[in-house]
Amino acid sequence: MAQQFEPPSGTRDFLAGALRTRERVFAQIREVFERYGFEPLQTPAFERLETLTGKYGDEGDKLIFKILRRGEHEASGEADMALRYDMTVPLARVVANYGSQLPTPYKRYAMGPVWRADRPGRGRFREFAQCDVDVVGSSSPLAEAEVVCALTDALDAVGARDYRVLVNSREALAGLLEVYGVPAELGGGVLITLDKLDKLSPDKVAAELVAARSLSAETADSLVGDLTAADAVERMRTALKDSDAGRAGLAEVDRLLELASPKVGAERIAFTPSLVRGLDYYTGVIFEVVAEGMPGSIASGGRYDGLISALGGPDVPACGGSLGVERIIGLLDDSADQGERLDVAATVIDEAGAAEVMGFAAALRDAGLRTEVYLAASRKLAKQLKWAADRRARFALIYGAADREADVVTVRDLDSGEQAQVSPAELVAYLTGRYAPSR
Amino acid sequence: MAQQFEPPSGTRDFLAGALRTRERVFAQIREVFERYGFEPLQTPAFERLETLTGKYGDEGDKLIFKILRRGEHEASGEADMALRYDMTVPLARVVANYGSQLPTPYKRYAMGPVWRADRPGRGRFREFAQCDVDVVGSSSPLAEAEVVCALTDALDAVGARDYRVLVNSREALAGLLEVYGVPAELGGGVLITLDKLDKLSPDKVAAELVAARSLSAETADSLVGDLTAADAVERMRTALKDSDAGRAGLAEVDRLLELASPKVGAERIAFTPSLVRGLDYYTGVIFEVVAEGMPGSIASGGRYDGLISALGGPDVPACGGSLGVERIIGLLDDSADQGERLDVAATVIDEAGAAEVMGFAAALRDAGLRTEVYLAASRKLAKQLKWAADRRARFALIYGAADREADVVTVRDLDSGEQAQVSPAELVAYLTGRYAPSR
Repeated sequence: MAQQFEPPSGTRDFLAGALRTRERVFAQIREVFERYGFEPLQTPAFERLETLTGKYGDEGDKLIFKILRRGEHEASGEADMALRYDMTVPLARVVANYGSQLPTPYKRYAMGPVWRADRPGRGRFREFAQCDVDVVGSSSPLAEAEVVCALTDALDAVGARDYRVLVNSREALAGLLEVYGVPAELGGGVLITLDKLDKLSPDKVAAELVAARSLSAETADSLVGDLTAADAVERMRTALKDSDAGRAGLAEVDRLLELASPKVGAERIAFTPSLVRGLDYYTGVIFEVVAEGMPGSIASGGRYDGLISALGGPDVPACGGSLGVERIIGLLDDSADQGERLDVAATVIDEAGAAEVMGFAAALRDAGLRTEVYLAASRKLAKQLKWAADRRARFALIYGAADREADVVTVRDLDSGEQAQVSPAELVAYLTGRYAPSR
Repeated sequence: MAQQFEPPSGTRDFLAGALRTRERVFAQIREVFERYGFEPLQTPAFERLETLTGKYGDEGDKLIFKILRRGEHEASGEADMALRYDMTVPLARVVANYGSQLPTPYKRYAMGPVWRADRPGRGRFREFAQCDVDVVGSSSPLAEAEVVCALTDALDAVGARDYRVLVNSREALAGLLEVYGVPAELGGGVLITLDKLDKLSPDKVAAELVAARSLSAETADSLVGDLTAADAVERMRTALKDSDAGRAGLAEVDRLLELASPKVGAERIAFTPSLVRGLDYYTGVIFEVVAEGMPGSIASGGRYDGLISALGGPDVPACGGSLGVERIIGLLDDSADQGERLDVAATVIDEAGAAEVMGFAAALRDAGLRTEVYLAASRKLAKQLKWAADRRARFALIYGAADREADVVTVRDLDSGEQAQVSPAELVAYLTGRYAPSR
């Protein structure tokens, strides 16, 4: 394959098999979100540049695909639009723009591509699908529970197994820093290092806390030791009681566990005091869904009450989460979608009968049978039957001069090899009667 | 609505109602194309700039959205990628790239957005959906007929009525110019002017042929007179017999009429000698589907044997067509999709019972009922029932302290006003038994 004909670096062409797998997964997820009363939203592929810049930090800003101005302005080399980088900034714009037209709270889902100029790599793309649910305008813990339930329900629907929901809270993390005597100005850095506990050994994390985050060796050892102990949860529950923030955070976590457990199962959701993630904008509970044998998370989210206003929208509470849909699709066995079976392959071995063959095909399609007519040049039956087999057709139709003479269509069952001659008027009834198409 | 929160000029936000209408139309069309054995293809939103430039003519090139280079190259002001402008250039790249992995012939459909920096206007967008079927690798008239049948079948599926398929051929047009004595070098311009016969009076077209296309008044009058006569088709059939190209073109047209008529209906498809369209790349039959009371066409296409190689692909015959899907959606009454009905609205008037309400909602959703839990702050029943009515719920659940005490859920039928007390264990059976959700 010549490089010039490949899709641009970090993007993919989806041929039929892979595309059907994706569409099936999206449909399964959509059905779950609809059952929860989330409404779909689709925003444009690009936004005004100023809508996006400054919203994703310096690193994020560099990954935005910018669109050059057009016409006489093209020569300026300036951009005025940029490709969607996530689903959250467009949500904030929509909430700001349509306000009272939207239900309160506004529960929406968004599924579609986003674009990031990241270095492409294994499983990392420049065009990839995101799949978000958010509740804007509710500060209720019920909203957080609904988000967690909708995401795990969607994971069930797409066949994810053996996952666990890890729950923590930003308040609980603030309490943690407080009770271990971490100075406020070091807190952010300490949490960034603690977030590595799922990848690095406790010793290495403690060493980084001392070397890079200026903690005393004693504080670092105590913090890391307690967080990684076999009874870490109990130690943390006890420790957090010494702080107002800690108690408030624990209460948030426990309320979410209580509300989500009827659906998720109490054994699959747990307080996880070392969970840190996305501290930049979360304000309340945070969660991640992890699965046996998979690095990273397959879903995540939390409460982010200040974000919609920071993004230019009104000052409303909000929470939400995201499914790692590319990762999920990457794990699926898509062989079932590699080529949908054809019901009927209509051969054309006699030019004079071609219009009648088109008529047979039309009638079969109207009856719901997936039917193709042979479109290549050969008029040899053997070659056309080879094509029918390649297309994995269940039946082949043959309508040669002798058939026309006798006013019959020859129907060959390509599974059994049996063959029957059927009157054209009875063809649809014959095929639908002995065969229910699988679609 | 502040301008800064509106979607960029020429693009649209699709809220739930409009998006459901679109998705329904796309699903109906997809189902038809699948029944014909067309395979889906999805290519990236952007292509390398050099893949697109020079493919759409000077005017088209100006309408391409170009993406600025990134990182250290951003300051150059140069572009290296560009947003997809149509579905045909990506098809050519895919055919060139995947060759033998694709079925022969390759019958594919593509549905999705394309982007053009056109001046936005009524019904003209910068981001809009295209919906194409193409057959690559067949020079058979059966392929052209399959394209016409698939497109008209899709029009039937989305509810289009009273349309007609106009058919002509590039060869027939060459023959027309020949028999009316138009010099070859004037041919292109003459056809561009003749293409205006559906908008301008015959007199004006004849005048333009003389003034702008250098035809003699006699030739112009004869050509326009014959093409607009009541018996134009007969006159043209007679005239074209005097030319090799004319006879070949007529034969192409008649074969398509014969092959497509069993499906389309002979009364809805006709030779239309004045049909010109897209002469830049069509090489054989051309067609347009027009509907009563609608300007322009709702579908169109033809054979374009040289295009795939001109676009960088291999030298293969091809034909295809496109549905004017935005135009079709614009005509639909989308009131039916303006808000899908909720099956169950679960109120939360008693904080202590909230987890059990979440459990009821989970069970109802598992049974397929579209269920929402009240997420706003009020704990007043009247306010929550108002919410249930706003969400057009069929049933409301009430689970207050007295209900918990009695171990029942109060189910209110919001259509009839009737109310029943149901044991939590029987809730799902009670609701699914007396009510079949419409989804």
